[in-house]
Amino acid sequence: MWGGRFASGPDAIMEEINASIGFDKRLYKQDIAGSIAHATMLGEVGILTRDDKDAIIAGLEAVRAEIDDNKFTFSRALEDIHMNVESRLRELIGEAAGRLHTARSRNDQVATDFKLYVRDCIDMLVAQIETLQRVLVSRADSEAGTVMPGFTHLQSAQPVTFGHHMLAYVEMFERDKTRFLDARKRLNQSPLGSAALAGTSFPIDREMTAKALGFDAPTANSLDAVSDRDFILETLSAASISAMHLSRFAEELVIWSSAQFSFVRLSDKFSTGSSIMPQKRNPDAAELIRAKIGRIFGAFSSLLMVMKGLPLAYSKDMQEDKEIAFDALDNFSLCLAAMTGMVSDLAVNRERMAAAAGAGFATATDLADWLVRAANVPFRDAHHITGRAVALAEEKGCGLEGLTIEDFKAIDERITSEVHKVLGVENSVKSRKSFGGTAPDNVKAQVALWHGRLGKEG
Amino acid sequence: MWGGRFASGPDAIMEEINASIGFDKRLYKQDIAGSIAHATMLGEVGILTRDDKDAIIAGLEAVRAEIDDNKFTFSRALEDIHMNVESRLRELIGEAAGRLHTARSRNDQVATDFKLYVRDCIDMLVAQIETLQRVLVSRADSEAGTVMPGFTHLQSAQPVTFGHHMLAYVEMFERDKTRFLDARKRLNQSPLGSAALAGTSFPIDREMTAKALGFDAPTANSLDAVSDRDFILETLSAASISAMHLSRFAEELVIWSSAQFSFVRLSDKFSTGSSIMPQKRNPDAAELIRAKIGRIFGAFSSLLMVMKGLPLAYSKDMQEDKEIAFDALDNFSLCLAAMTGMVSDLAVNRERMAAAAGAGFATATDLADWLVRAANVPFRDAHHITGRAVALAEEKGCGLEGLTIEDFKAIDERITSEVHKVLGVENSVKSRKSFGGTAPDNVKAQVALWHGRLGKEG
Amino acid sequence: MWGGRFASGPDAIMEEINASIGFDKRLYKQDIAGSIAHATMLGEVGILTRDDKDAIIAGLEAVRAEIDDNKFTFSRALEDIHMNVESRLRELIGEAAGRLHTARSRNDQVATDFKLYVRDCIDMLVAQIETLQRVLVSRADSEAGTVMPGFTHLQSAQPVTFGHHMLAYVEMFERDKTRFLDARKRLNQSPLGSAALAGTSFPIDREMTAKALGFDAPTANSLDAVSDRDFILETLSAASISAMHLSRFAEELVIWSSAQFSFVRLSDKFSTGSSIMPQKRNPDAAELIRAKIGRIFGAFSSLLMVMKGLPLAYSKDMQEDKEIAFDALDNFSLCLAAMTGMVSDLAVNRERMAAAAGAGFATATDLADWLVRAANVPFRDAHHITGRAVALAEEKGCGLEGLTIEDFKAIDERITSEVHKVLGVENSVKSRKSFGGTAPDNVKAQVALWHGRLGKEG
Amino acid sequence: MWGGRFASGPDAIMEEINASIGFDKRLYKQDIAGSIAHATMLGEVGILTRDDKDAIIAGLEAVRAEIDDNKFTFSRALEDIHMNVESRLRELIGEAAGRLHTARSRNDQVATDFKLYVRDCIDMLVAQIETLQRVLVSRADSEAGTVMPGFTHLQSAQPVTFGHHMLAYVEMFERDKTRFLDARKRLNQSPLGSAALAGTSFPIDREMTAKALGFDAPTANSLDAVSDRDFILETLSAASISAMHLSRFAEELVIWSSAQFSFVRLSDKFSTGSSIMPQKRNPDAAELIRAKIGRIFGAFSSLLMVMKGLPLAYSKDMQEDKEIAFDALDNFSLCLAAMTGMVSDLAVNRERMAAAAGAGFATATDLADWLVRAANVPFRDAHHITGRAVALAEEKGCGLEGLTIEDFKAIDERITSEVHKVLGVENSVKSRKSFGGTAPDNVKAQVALWHGRLGKEG
Repeated sequence: MWGGRFASGPDAIMEEINASIGFDKRLYKQDIAGSIAHATMLGEVGILTRDDKDAIIAGLEAVRAEIDDNKFTFSRALEDIHMNVESRLRELIGEAAGRLHTARSRNDQVATDFKLYVRDCIDMLVAQIETLQRVLVSRADSEAGTVMPGFTHLQSAQPVTFGHHMLAYVEMFERDKTRFLDARKRLNQSPLGSAALAGTSFPIDREMTAKALGFDAPTANSLDAVSDRDFILETLSAASISAMHLSRFAEELVIWSSAQFSFVRLSDKFSTGSSIMPQKRNPDAAELIRAKIGRIFGAFSSLLMVMKGLPLAYSKDMQEDKEIAFDALDNFSLCLAAMTGMVSDLAVNRERMAAAAGAGFATATDLADWLVRAANVPFRDAHHITGRAVALAEEKGCGLEGLTIEDFKAIDERITSEVHKVLGVENSVKSRKSFGGTAPDNVKAQVALWHGRLGKEG
Repeated sequence: MWGGRFASGPDAIMEEINASIGFDKRLYKQDIAGSIAHATMLGEVGILTRDDKDAIIAGLEAVRAEIDDNKFTFSRALEDIHMNVESRLRELIGEAAGRLHTARSRNDQVATDFKLYVRDCIDMLVAQIETLQRVLVSRADSEAGTVMPGFTHLQSAQPVTFGHHMLAYVEMFERDKTRFLDARKRLNQSPLGSAALAGTSFPIDREMTAKALGFDAPTANSLDAVSDRDFILETLSAASISAMHLSRFAEELVIWSSAQFSFVRLSDKFSTGSSIMPQKRNPDAAELIRAKIGRIFGAFSSLLMVMKGLPLAYSKDMQEDKEIAFDALDNFSLCLAAMTGMVSDLAVNRERMAAAAGAGFATATDLADWLVRAANVPFRDAHHITGRAVALAEEKGCGLEGLTIEDFKAIDERITSEVHKVLGVENSVKSRKSFGGTAPDNVKAQVALWHGRLGKEG
Repeated sequence: MWGGRFASGPDAIMEEINASIGFDKRLYKQDIAGSIAHATMLGEVGILTRDDKDAIIAGLEAVRAEIDDNKFTFSRALEDIHMNVESRLRELIGEAAGRLHTARSRNDQVATDFKLYVRDCIDMLVAQIETLQRVLVSRADSEAGTVMPGFTHLQSAQPVTFGHHMLAYVEMFERDKTRFLDARKRLNQSPLGSAALAGTSFPIDREMTAKALGFDAPTANSLDAVSDRDFILETLSAASISAMHLSRFAEELVIWSSAQFSFVRLSDKFSTGSSIMPQKRNPDAAELIRAKIGRIFGAFSSLLMVMKGLPLAYSKDMQEDKEIAFDALDNFSLCLAAMTGMVSDLAVNRERMAAAAGAGFATATDLADWLVRAANVPFRDAHHITGRAVALAEEKGCGLEGLTIEDFKAIDERITSEVHKVLGVENSVKSRKSFGGTAPDNVKAQVALWHGRLGKEG
Repeated sequence: MWGGRFASGPDAIMEEINASIGFDKRLYKQDIAGSIAHATMLGEVGILTRDDKDAIIAGLEAVRAEIDDNKFTFSRALEDIHMNVESRLRELIGEAAGRLHTARSRNDQVATDFKLYVRDCIDMLVAQIETLQRVLVSRADSEAGTVMPGFTHLQSAQPVTFGHHMLAYVEMFERDKTRFLDARKRLNQSPLGSAALAGTSFPIDREMTAKALGFDAPTANSLDAVSDRDFILETLSAASISAMHLSRFAEELVIWSSAQFSFVRLSDKFSTGSSIMPQKRNPDAAELIRAKIGRIFGAFSSLLMVMKGLPLAYSKDMQEDKEIAFDALDNFSLCLAAMTGMVSDLAVNRERMAAAAGAGFATATDLADWLVRAANVPFRDAHHITGRAVALAEEKGCGLEGLTIEDFKAIDERITSEVHKVLGVENSVKSRKSFGGTAPDNVKAQVALWHGRLGKEG
């Protein structure tokens, strides 16, 4: 009657849609830590006797050890991690277990567990981002003077250095990192003790449990505490934005690895081959990183849609938050790790990059700037003169540096032989010394600064 | 170095991000069916000897039986379902296994497998939608004359029948169903034989494999065949739109179950209680159905973002399609099953609905329409006269039907005692006999029509 | 008090958020067509006198002419297009105008208007897609034998023809087109006469208005008719999927236009230059097409989120549907037009493509297939032999076709001099004659077929 | 040939898709402020003469005045705001205008303009959020003791105070506000002087322009500066999350305004009526606020998809950022203003809320907690005893407070007459004095705290 998968009737369907233990068991460490903090506090303020408190804590530690050791049997009939743990606690220590749930409810308990979990994720992700940054800084260090084409519209525009390009991503990941840290700061208030939705009449000490769990403070409004999930949304949006940065870098790696570009060569470890074409080196990891932004953004979209228009306080809709977040944060972590591995293994083809950088009149802007600087030509006029020089070079089949001083004079009398100093790509990048510019000295200075901030790799 | 989860170094990361066997093993039936069709065809056209063909088919059937019986050991080192099956085939039948992959590649193989899988899902979902429709039609049948408030802006606007309301969803699900069927029709072309991306030089018969697998025809362009995933996107968009309809119905069930509305009572099976408040009946299943639109839409979003801007033909990004689709289609199926169960179990509180339908001057439109019809008052003027009648009734603390004929005459001379016939909610709904209107007779007629189309429930 | 933009207090805010005339005036043609059909029907069934009916129709035509000629003053105080038109009608024809709204409401009126609008859009978009298809078929015709690398993972995999590549997009756009046509078929039922939500007690003829407006039938349920917007969602999802195809093509054009690829050259009309680097040719139109999938998908996302969880029937939330749809469909139309222009203007660099197609041992698969076919080597073994040949060629610094027969014999005795026939890219593509394969003859056959279906360009 | 809208051929299409002046003219103030800062700096460091600098600045101020006064003619042929302003400057001051663009490009210019614009938006939105918070605090103050049902699953769970409910939103909006402020902090680095993508060889002083424009510092990497749009994404994600909070509140207002709930009554200003049903009060503004989360989230989705996979540095795709952001931020601002107006005008029906709070055995938890506290019953056992009491009360048709002490004793001997003190809703809310709990005294304390932080309303 219910279609294939639900042959067993409504009860089975309700259990299937309702039970969360299949995924929320992943919160067991946080759940037990929360319960230990709660029991300790209940003991301190006299709601639990010392004996009950001690029994509960010892029991919870025993349960945790069983789960750690894969000796725990999870039951779907018990619905969720909270009831699974409490039920086992009762088997282990008897009636006292029934006193643990005093002055709390599953609503504040799950909010606490999930905040702790997300906080742990953030800490791990921030560490992973810093690892990636260190690898990028290291590559920037060794490629500070490596010239490559700087692209706009995937057309060569001006020469830049590969080191500078790597540091652009260090900047992006720095902002991503602080976004996670801001999310962490904002989520770090303890819902524990908000009870079902209204607070409690027991004389609990929420400061104490907050402190024990590493929170900065208890939440100030019980309705808000049990019914919001903005902390996950913010974390997922930080992950989505960072995944966007990763997708851009991944796209560059795919393009740079093509035969036509050949700017970089991925290591065997981070590419797949073909038994038939041994020279082939598919950038699978880069492609998967590029793709996974979809998954991570999908999680943000999903949860925002779940939360849209829900009346306060807790609604069962909110149970959807966990699988979504687990999947997205796992995948984001995997992307960071794979990108770190790929970049640290990457072989850079300096010759190909330099050759490409010199093609296509990439120093035309340098000529125009020279005209402004040395000959006081207004910028817009300098552009037109440069255009004529490029057209002539194209006609003669040479680069700008191949034009003679006579060629230049024929175009504009004000041009002197000094101009040749700015037409080579090496000189071009060296000249971009404005703060934030691509000059190798700038790159070196930024590398030193990042070494100071992040420590060196390895 | 890689952050917590990736302590074991780059090789492990690459395997973690790259291998798909963890999820694509779900395609084993489709994969083996495709291989059997392929081997049969290779035999028919003479590329395989009869002996090799027979050995391969018997071997594939043996592999399928092993997987069916949970006796198969999947290997992550073999990456995906295709290599896992072929590797086991080689163990079972030896060298001939190496001839199976002639004139195909993993690119056309996976596209074929996944189309077959999605087609199977569509068939199941269509059957589930019809089951839900039958339950709705059955409820419409028994509640054809049950009067309830028709809402706009969640404000009572005009009385309608509960049966009519149920049939509104039957219409929506009918469109949803045909959307799936259109997607099925469009996907039903066989990619098999498109090989890696260019077709093949072997004299294969793609019509034969297409027919064997229930496809309408082979795809006409090999590059397109291996590189598009629009068939999943279309299926996920159909599921998203249908999930939107489910979310609206679920929201209504949540609101109608509130103490303040009390229009319906969910069965024990489809609500959760509270050990402390036994009268409580939380509409968990409805809330979860309401929520899961997020997840299903998230899948569409994810995959569309994955596919954005990918050059032809196959890119590894496309491997992300499966987990996304599995999760969304599973959840959509679960929602359909849970909604079907909930609706068939639902207790309707006719008294509460009728009382609410009569409140709030819900027949004001009937009065206005009567003025137009019986007294030839222009519609806009009829509205103003009605407004004055409602204001008077509000002042007197009665409904419109409580106004005397003198009251009405004082407002407008043209009103006669005939007017009282249109002021009761029963008469109101009975009068809405225009095609598609809410009159009980209309509902009965539509029920009969749907019985003819869908068959009766049970 | 309200922040910058809302200095004038709550009334202004309410008008700002509530009025729709700023955007729904775009529906005036559909609105007036609907009113004329409604008035005509009211006249036929005797609800309106002939004089009133004639006056109303003449008045509506006069209003339409005023709007056509930009002589109409839209008023925000009148909120929407319906009231603006009706109000002007009253000025023009007096009291009879007040009879037009008999037996309908703004709820069925706006649903009718918007369905008519979306239907018109679909008709235009389908015509635009066919124009694009014709241009692609024409390019396929002239480039049926042009060899280029077929890519997987942006790595050269096997040679294909440019014509075959163009036809891959013709297939995609064909599915896109039928998706729009299916949406059109599904939406083509008339809501008119559903009134506010319950139908009406007037003896209207909904078949008549449906027919007059080109609908296939009236909708069968009044609640459904006024409260669903799935028809827009389906249209937006069809546009999103098609925009995905456009984004892939646009990405290819950007990559192919890079100096490193140089496979194609965009015309001046469809690229932007630089006053300073006259050789530069930025693929702006391709980039914008690639980007606009975001906007079109954003519209689908927005509207799905709007509709999530709305109780029946009409809610004001649904007013958000229009601006979203207008923007997305305009932009999609613009993308189709720009892509059509770009492709018809595109210069193909056959030499670059052919050279790239021959590089990278792209015919390795042909060698393996030859071993299977001519020497009866199992496919998996043929792969290993081919791998050794490629390795040898790489060592010798030549292509596979540069290996001597002695070289081949040293690798495997079964190889004969016949093998050289399959190692050139021309022969490779010619050999892919399986249905759907890339062989020039196949391309020509498909072109002929599409010419039959679509007519020729120009 | 191009379908309806593009009859005029490819040139028109390219201009239509490419030109941005139609929307980026909105940035004129920021563009001119940036140019003035740039010119001032160029003068200070000696790249411009004092005369040229003065002429440029005076000219830019004249252009700004023209635009302010609607006397400026924007030209689509000049593409964007930058060229429109510069072109007019040249008309006004002649050749010196051509010197303004020295040492910058449109790439750093547009990034600077848009950052300044988004920063201005954030400042306005933060002020609007605070206004809304002040209104909520004011309502909390006057309704600190107003009892209403606290809902979970839209089922009455425990009594809370309306003031506490209002403060829950104050907490959410506080987090929303700090999210915007964090985004502001992160974006507040000046891209100006990054030039096209590589920095410049001119001896510019980026600190000076950064300071003049209110930035904290210049950006440290030129490639990053011109190619990232994460600052808009972050702002849009903050808006999306806050719109989610608004959508929840709006949903509550819609439900609370229904006849069945009647907890609140919206003012005439923020609802729409019906000429026919004068008592009707449609919560249009609340519905529109609920809906607009779709639009705001759609903007985030759109831009993230636009940015996915773009190689560095500037690509034309990024031009899509503006219309998306303008629309979303305008709509978010409108929602804040409308919500503020609605809440400040809202009439609270204390009687209905109190009656609903007392129904449904809402103090069952209080009874259970009393058993734990006063009779030392373990929590889980207390739950079961309470369940029996509720069942008895249901049977007797009374509330828990209607049970006699004998009734209670019959259920459990340990219950004393003290129990009646905790069974009334007033006592229930007063007892929830734990930090963050709903007790009126807590609400008053929080109100005082917020008054200190935000200042009082009005």
